[in-house]
Amino acid sequence: MHSKAYSNLDYLSNKIGARLSGSPQAAEAVKWAFDAMKAAGADTVYLQECMVPHWVRGEKEQAKFISKSTTSTINITALGGTVGTGKNGITAPVVEIKDTSELRKLGEAALKGKIVFYNKPMDPTKTNTFSAYGGAVHQRWGGASWAAKYGAVAVVVRSMGLANNDDPHTGSMSYLDSAAKKIPACAVSVKGAEALSNALKSDPTTSVYIRFTSETLPDEKSYNVIGEIRGSTNTDEIITVGGHLDSWDNGNGAHDDGAGIVHSIEVLRTFKALGIKPKRTIRAVAFMNEENGLRGGKKYAEQALLKKEKHILAMESDRGGFSPRGFTFSGDADKRKKFTSYKSIFEVYGVYDFNGKGGGSDIGPLEKMGVPVCELLVDSQRYFDVHHTPSDTFDKVSKRELEMGAAAMAAMIWLVSENGM
Amino acid sequence: MHSKAYSNLDYLSNKIGARLSGSPQAAEAVKWAFDAMKAAGADTVYLQECMVPHWVRGEKEQAKFISKSTTSTINITALGGTVGTGKNGITAPVVEIKDTSELRKLGEAALKGKIVFYNKPMDPTKTNTFSAYGGAVHQRWGGASWAAKYGAVAVVVRSMGLANNDDPHTGSMSYLDSAAKKIPACAVSVKGAEALSNALKSDPTTSVYIRFTSETLPDEKSYNVIGEIRGSTNTDEIITVGGHLDSWDNGNGAHDDGAGIVHSIEVLRTFKALGIKPKRTIRAVAFMNEENGLRGGKKYAEQALLKKEKHILAMESDRGGFSPRGFTFSGDADKRKKFTSYKSIFEVYGVYDFNGKGGGSDIGPLEKMGVPVCELLVDSQRYFDVHHTPSDTFDKVSKRELEMGAAAMAAMIWLVSENGM
Repeated sequence: MHSKAYSNLDYLSNKIGARLSGSPQAAEAVKWAFDAMKAAGADTVYLQECMVPHWVRGEKEQAKFISKSTTSTINITALGGTVGTGKNGITAPVVEIKDTSELRKLGEAALKGKIVFYNKPMDPTKTNTFSAYGGAVHQRWGGASWAAKYGAVAVVVRSMGLANNDDPHTGSMSYLDSAAKKIPACAVSVKGAEALSNALKSDPTTSVYIRFTSETLPDEKSYNVIGEIRGSTNTDEIITVGGHLDSWDNGNGAHDDGAGIVHSIEVLRTFKALGIKPKRTIRAVAFMNEENGLRGGKKYAEQALLKKEKHILAMESDRGGFSPRGFTFSGDADKRKKFTSYKSIFEVYGVYDFNGKGGGSDIGPLEKMGVPVCELLVDSQRYFDVHHTPSDTFDKVSKRELEMGAAAMAAMIWLVSENGM
Repeated sequence: MHSKAYSNLDYLSNKIGARLSGSPQAAEAVKWAFDAMKAAGADTVYLQECMVPHWVRGEKEQAKFISKSTTSTINITALGGTVGTGKNGITAPVVEIKDTSELRKLGEAALKGKIVFYNKPMDPTKTNTFSAYGGAVHQRWGGASWAAKYGAVAVVVRSMGLANNDDPHTGSMSYLDSAAKKIPACAVSVKGAEALSNALKSDPTTSVYIRFTSETLPDEKSYNVIGEIRGSTNTDEIITVGGHLDSWDNGNGAHDDGAGIVHSIEVLRTFKALGIKPKRTIRAVAFMNEENGLRGGKKYAEQALLKKEKHILAMESDRGGFSPRGFTFSGDADKRKKFTSYKSIFEVYGVYDFNGKGGGSDIGPLEKMGVPVCELLVDSQRYFDVHHTPSDTFDKVSKRELEMGAAAMAAMIWLVSENGM
């Protein structure tokens, strides 16, 4: 009867580890998830094929800044999707900006041949760290494209992190105009960003050297893993609960999103262990490729549409394995009212926040099709200390907190399974 | 303007470290707290003398169990206040009990000359870990006295912890009848308790060897440290905010209760840094000797009574430096209504739980005098992983979570200072 969430996460984080889309470890994770869903008692487990991007980091990144008085190495990480710098690296003077609007003001005259250093921090005063992330992550995502328009040769982006440490945070970037020049993009640790910014203050001619050999290989075949418990009375009404199986390649993907995967598998196991036959069909989905393509989420929605499946709710867990604090919900007003009416059942356990909207990335494509979506909210204060870094490891996850998240999810899914949506 | 809570905690935990009452480190902590309150901008800082117990652990504890098939060392810690075992230690057969009611049933026939092994775990199904603690800690506190009545020669108590690890948890015990025989008492790690319990299952004649040289020395002179910002209009109305400066001797007292100390000092600093003159007098108190005597809390209340001080509210922080989730409150119905009416101001920051009652140990004596009391509630899931163990160290504290706790406390104290109680 005891939770398997923690031991499952131990295996996924420590035995398989980092599992970026297209990697052998991602393939291993697919096999593991299949077996874990079987072991959890799913009636049927199957794979759903999807093609995924296959970006590889290449050799260990190198970087330093060179100013009149100092040469200092800085910790960088290539951003997912970036091109490489070439074997000789790139050395160029640096222009620091805090707001993307500065690019236009500076123009080609100031930016051509330069490395643009995006240094807007996540706002530490926001209690909701995901809002702080939302207010800064555009630099990582679009920074290279915007700077390239003015002739910049590369971009260095301040890590999306709230802790003042030396872990660089990777994450996806995109070349927004596929016809335009693609320049290399990397993130520098918060400490490195502060050091570089200080160096630029004393010497505006400071230049930066960066080197990485990242490249994008042809797409690879991969899979979503789907485990189902068939509903006893309203079998055609499907409740999806999922997280993403892929992770960045620099940590072990314990919080992001190993937690969401083991949460979702634990929901199945809880029904089976307690001998509860749900009225509606419960589907745990280990989505592939959330981090750099969302191909799994798109494929799942596409197939749902094709098969004319009736999805009454999709739930995601992709905010880490911390103490549960509530659920977001997006859907029409009546459904919202029904969903939030369960609040009193949860708040005695400290799961009290039912105010937010939205689901998660993987179920975003379902949401666009009109499916009501929700996401587990957890205490987010420590998430961006480890997010997309080498520190996203199993030891950062509390067994109790992880299990409480799974319990909250299972309880909500049981309620929706009993009462419909 | 930036918070000093984290750097203060760094100093207290890492430079001073463990600071059990009567130790040189406790004396050093008094000096440090005095200076820190001055630096925070208190109008006046003063010491309040109190005599404290001076218990010393002695040499490193040793323990093992001996069964027919195995001899295995186990990790124990002497409980605060215990007598030693003598230099040769104590070896005796073990009787395991899960409930104190078993003592009477077993009686002297079964217990005389034995070591009683209290093995009731904290209930892991309780969301509120303090409730789980409350349901088990009597074994630690009274176990030696109850067992001694039936002729037991020592007690080994399962650690008050929820994680399945090898850290033994120390904590106070008491000889409830000072005239009765005092037998040695120690706690064994959760892993050790499980191993010993398993050994007893296969071999009921299993015996245990324990050795420690703990003793209680004469009382020492020590101090509460008090820093005050005088109220501008209702100067005689005092709001006390405090934590305890002493800590157990095996960790660094970072969460317990370094966090409460730096929270309380930060409240003063916040008023000063923001240039807010409180209407009522704010008093930060670093109480001495919460862990094994409560002499500081008692002295503070005694002096308040003697000086006929008007205390309108006392707030404690002694649940660790985790994410704030609410406040408890105890006082009459009108005051409770007023206090909880502030909930809406806090809940947007995730500080939503205003249902609980009680204050904290240090302000318990004030509560008995009729002073309304409250305590900062924080996420308690990880607290009993480190509580009273060598793992209660600075690295377990999140800067953001610590600062958010201080901010919640400062905001509440400002509201009470403005509006009275």
